[in-house]
Formats: sequence, structure tokens, C-alpha cells
Amino acid sequence: MASNIEKCLGEIGITLPRPGSPAGNYVPFVIVHDLVFMAGQVAREAGKMKYTGKVGREISIEDAQAAARLCALNLLAQLKVACGGDLDRVDRCVRLGGFVNSPPDFFDHPKVINGASDLMVQVLGERGQHARTAVGVAALPLDSAVEVEAIFQLKP
Amino acid sequence: MASNIEKCLGEIGITLPRPGSPAGNYVPFVIVHDLVFMAGQVAREAGKMKYTGKVGREISIEDAQAAARLCALNLLAQLKVACGGDLDRVDRCVRLGGFVNSPPDFFDHPKVINGASDLMVQVLGERGQHARTAVGVAALPLDSAVEVEAIFQLKP
Amino acid sequence: MASNIEKCLGEIGITLPRPGSPAGNYVPFVIVHDLVFMAGQVAREAGKMKYTGKVGREISIEDAQAAARLCALNLLAQLKVACGGDLDRVDRCVRLGGFVNSPPDFFDHPKVINGASDLMVQVLGERGQHARTAVGVAALPLDSAVEVEAIFQLKP
Repeated sequence: MASNIEKCLGEIGITLPRPGSPAGNYVPFVIVHDLVFMAGQVAREAGKMKYTGKVGREISIEDAQAAARLCALNLLAQLKVACGGDLDRVDRCVRLGGFVNSPPDFFDHPKVINGASDLMVQVLGERGQHARTAVGVAALPLDSAVEVEAIFQLKP
Repeated sequence: MASNIEKCLGEIGITLPRPGSPAGNYVPFVIVHDLVFMAGQVAREAGKMKYTGKVGREISIEDAQAAARLCALNLLAQLKVACGGDLDRVDRCVRLGGFVNSPPDFFDHPKVINGASDLMVQVLGERGQHARTAVGVAALPLDSAVEVEAIFQLKP
Repeated sequence: MASNIEKCLGEIGITLPRPGSPAGNYVPFVIVHDLVFMAGQVAREAGKMKYTGKVGREISIEDAQAAARLCALNLLAQLKVACGGDLDRVDRCVRLGGFVNSPPDFFDHPKVINGASDLMVQVLGERGQHARTAVGVAALPLDSAVEVEAIFQLKP
């Protein structure tokens, strides 16, 4: 029996990616009580970088939003593992941290990270509403256009 | 009856700003048990950016400290909402994350973020003492000179 | 009686540094229930910066990895204080946040931050496996090559 959130994903045409391997000596998430601390996810699809470069210069805002959305999908894929396969166990998206691969004169980070935030709200509804920090960083692993980390809360 | 912390704010001549609206699809805070995860606040006053630019180049350290203080005031304004209007419910400032809009050759980030840290200690006393990370980022939303995020703990 | 973790440190030839003083108006850690939120640590040894500069340009990847390891040692030194001197009270390294002093064209942040992650796993074993975010920032306090922050969980 598919979970409600899986059904919702199906209805909006989303197939979660296969969870990828960490890029270093760390794990994709650690569960502490009912909180899931999730490692930063980059704009990687099927093991290959999909969106790279400085936003507003080497990659458009629209593509960077798609990059942020992809990071969020990668987070959800790992979150499903953290939930033992059942995303309905997710109680809340608590916080997103969004890092934009940013030239010094780019100032539209909130618009870019909305690509991740919109997906959380689309998939989780009210439970997808989260606190957020968005900043522009000098560079990101593998030249990813965006990196997003997260904290989720599970149901009791 | 004004709370003790409100009285303290009055005595040091501080009026909390009106809490602003988020710059994207997120909420200003999420409460998990007794922890308040707060979204990053920029140096905005009454809906308009007040301190912008690269610190040490386009804006002085002193103004950047004022920017950090303004971010902290914006955090406190949102925290008051999280507390249902009563800041005396705050038990502790747990952590500040400080992001400085930084040229590659600026190294005085701790001095800048002290503008936020000093305010927390001034307003909350011992309960204002927090863990902190200060870094220099390539760019910030709306060219803000500083962005500060926070975690607070509420009383049981 | 030395703790198991202290013995392990001895066996791999590690002496924890003396915990340093914060660079601003903050404290090295705040304990909330069983979580320890730790302030960012830079590549400082005995009160002096040891590894500085932009990674891949002014400092090699190998030296930057040593810088990340030094940040991790500084975290463990503070964590020991948080544990009242007994590191065996540590249940888990929950999360590391790694900031690399990065030129815009450097993309090997995961490799650099592994210098911190490897140490955690070396010292804490399975309990050292953590979630992680690694990004490249424009500049760091005192021109440190790396800064690492952490969240640990203590045993009940």
C-alpha cells in the first residue's frame, strides 16, 4: 500500500531518485530521537552532476531553481530511507539550509532556494513549511550550482 | 504587565522592530519541542535593506557590526512571536550562525558578528551566551552586509 | 582511570590540544538536553593560526586536510570539557559543518573536510559516523584554511 505522500508524489509526476552515495567519509543522515539531521545534497542525478556553475553567470536562475529542486528530491530520497521506506512517518520539514554557488554580485539567493522550498510544500503541504537560511558561497563540491541541507522531524 | 526582558529592552533604549515577511517560500521559525529553529535574518529595517555591500570594502566594520545587531533585533522580533508575545519564555540562546558578505581578503568576521552576539548577551544576560559559527560568504540575499540565523531554547 | 576514547587517542598518537578561547562574545558549546551544539573551530594551535589561505592556491589540499583534522581536534578538546572530562560520555557525532576557504574555482571540498570526518571515525568508531555539509566560502576568520562546527549527542 503506497503511502499518502508517495501517492501525492505520483500525482504531481515525481519519481524519487535512487539515494546516492555520500561524497566523503560521512553518512546521508543521523537520527536523534525524532529529528533527522540530513547531510547536504548537491544537484546530482543518477551519480552525475546535472547543474553546475556560478548562478547568474554560467547557469540561469531558472536552471538554478531546478538544481535546488533536484537537491530537495535527493533529500527526500534519503529521508525515505531514514523513515524505513514510509514517508508518511515525516511530521515536519523543520529547516533547510541553502547554499548557492554565487558570484560576488548575485543577490537572488531566495528565489533560487525556493526551488527546494516549493517542492517541500508541494509534497508535504503545511508540514513542508520550514525555517530557512539562504546564502551565496564562493564554490560548491563538484561545482554544483546549489547545495541544500535539512532537518526533519518524524512522527512519534 | 511587561516581561522582564521587555523592561530590559526598554532600559537600554531598544524597541523591537515589527517582524518582517520571509523573502521566500518559508516561515520565520519552526518550534520543535522546546527548540526554536529560526530562519536567517538580513539587515532589513521596516521592509527596506539598511546595510548592504562587501564588508571592509563597500561598508565599514562598524556599520557591519550595526548590521549584525539589526539582524539580531529581527531575530528577537520573530522570537517574540514564537513565544506568543512573552520573551520571558526564552530559556537560552543556543546557537548563532553568522554570515558576513565578505571580500576574499577580509578576515575580521568574529568582530562583525559580535554585533549580534553582544546584543543577545545584553538582552538575555547569561542566557544569551551561545555557541557560534562566523564565516565570510561570497554574497548575501539583497546584498545584505550580514545574515544571522539562530536556535533558541524555550522554558519548559 | 583513562577513558576508552582517551586510550584510543593515545594508541593513535593523538594528544588533545588545550581548549582555546573563543574569538568573540560566544561560548565554545551549549548543551541542550543530550545534544552539544559546538561553536566553529578554526585551524589554530596553541593560540596561533597554523593553516591559512585559499585552498588549492595558497595552501595545498593535503595541508588543508591537516587543517580540517586540527579543527576536529579542537572540537574534541572542547567536547571533553562539555563531557566533564570524560569523552566516553559521547554517544554520537551527529553532524559536522565544514567551511573551506575557497577560491571560486576550487571544487574538492569533500576531500578537504574528510580530514575532520576521518578523525571522528578514527576516534569514535561507528559512533563517529555523522551527517555533513561541506561548502566553499569566500573567507574565514583569521584567514583560516578551514572551519568546522559540530553537533554531538551524549549518552543518557
